[in-house]
Amino acid sequence: MKSKYIESSANKYIKELTKLRDRKYRDQQNKFTIEGLREISRAFESKYEIHALYYCDEYLVSQNSKNLVKNIALANIPLTRLHPNVFKRCSVRENPDGLIAVSSSISFKLTELNLNKKATIVVLEGIEKPGNLGAIIRSSDGSGADAIILNNCMIDIYNPNVIRSSQGLVFKLPIIKSESKSIKEWLVTEKFRTIATTPRAKIKYNEIEYYNRNALILGSESKGLTDNWIKNVDLNISIPMSGLGDSLNVSVAAGICLYEIAQHLSK
Amino acid sequence: MKSKYIESSANKYIKELTKLRDRKYRDQQNKFTIEGLREISRAFESKYEIHALYYCDEYLVSQNSKNLVKNIALANIPLTRLHPNVFKRCSVRENPDGLIAVSSSISFKLTELNLNKKATIVVLEGIEKPGNLGAIIRSSDGSGADAIILNNCMIDIYNPNVIRSSQGLVFKLPIIKSESKSIKEWLVTEKFRTIATTPRAKIKYNEIEYYNRNALILGSESKGLTDNWIKNVDLNISIPMSGLGDSLNVSVAAGICLYEIAQHLSK
Repeated sequence: MKSKYIESSANKYIKELTKLRDRKYRDQQNKFTIEGLREISRAFESKYEIHALYYCDEYLVSQNSKNLVKNIALANIPLTRLHPNVFKRCSVRENPDGLIAVSSSISFKLTELNLNKKATIVVLEGIEKPGNLGAIIRSSDGSGADAIILNNCMIDIYNPNVIRSSQGLVFKLPIIKSESKSIKEWLVTEKFRTIATTPRAKIKYNEIEYYNRNALILGSESKGLTDNWIKNVDLNISIPMSGLGDSLNVSVAAGICLYEIAQHLSK
Repeated sequence: MKSKYIESSANKYIKELTKLRDRKYRDQQNKFTIEGLREISRAFESKYEIHALYYCDEYLVSQNSKNLVKNIALANIPLTRLHPNVFKRCSVRENPDGLIAVSSSISFKLTELNLNKKATIVVLEGIEKPGNLGAIIRSSDGSGADAIILNNCMIDIYNPNVIRSSQGLVFKLPIIKSESKSIKEWLVTEKFRTIATTPRAKIKYNEIEYYNRNALILGSESKGLTDNWIKNVDLNISIPMSGLGDSLNVSVAAGICLYEIAQHLSK
């Protein structure tokens, strides 16, 4: 395995790597970093192009990590070995596993989605926290949902926290940013039943039948869904709240509804 | 409304307030701060004693916030008005609402719990993230669960992120820290069916009947449940994973199982 070795944080590649922590710079370059074995593996196995892999022998504890380095080398992707101090400087994790890759962002379009008769889509309006988006990506993958559409989303989907909290599944599920008008038109054309979640809805999530194509729509952590969605959907649903709180964490609410839908569709 | 006014961050009360951000200091003093209208209101309406309220007129936008200040004054709790710069220094929020209270921690015991025939308990082993604990507290409240038991938990339940992500419901639900031996003995004595969640379980969460008393047991974000629980419970359950991931975010998994249990018990 032939690879460069970098011992100094002043090296231009290391400067570039740390600059990619800044969202503006990521956007300008259309590039981002991926840290961790599972996350890099998922990007590598999907459509994402890996431009470079930085690794640190001293942190590479598992055989799987070593295998990934070999496979990346076999794919003729440039490898760079880092001194532990340099690696530590580049890592954003508490317990790094010795692997950081650089990849290019991909932007998906609604029209590129290839969906079956029983497709489930999650639409998120104004979601604010990378950890919640990551958890929703995991639940979408787990429950068999087909794509996530982000409306008015300020989060960069290649934010390290989204990558990490989704366990790299952000690279596997199509995630599309779009305007509400285009999303609504597309949902109608594609014959999705549009289902908005709001604590105000009288119908409970488990009181209806789910069949064919469903679009589950959820709002932001602080404000919930706006009337722009609530008043322009086929159905509003809520989750029963039997305590003092009036709503659940948005990723929990999404998970509960997605698994309810999955149960109905698998029957 | 008579209240002191503080204009300088060098004031001893302000120094005390900012010192409470440090967990060690909170533990020593058995005191903690609560920020935000909803959170302080929930502590004030529950068993928690409020020792002092700090507020800032310039940030108090809602009538409810102003009413809380009045009610706190009527309860003869010392009020202190802060200069906006001083308040900003004390606040840990991005969009503060002008209210910070000081309260004392309460420690609950298992034997103090007063539970009915159909009680549901959540046991969390080694939970690591305050945001996940907060979300589980919200879901427990929403689904009607009765208490949360924390085993090997490093999180301070009065961590500002737990208070915030639970929307102050941390003050409403009994939360008990205990050793696994005591918890197991108590669960047996109290005739709880013990149900451990693990991706390895063959039985799915929605394939069984839930009745009477259930203890839902979940593990840490990074490692899941240890064999100490998995091998010593009545039942292991899993959530079907139809994608590439092998598990869900722990707060999402808890929410899905808690609402499944609630559905069965309400029949």
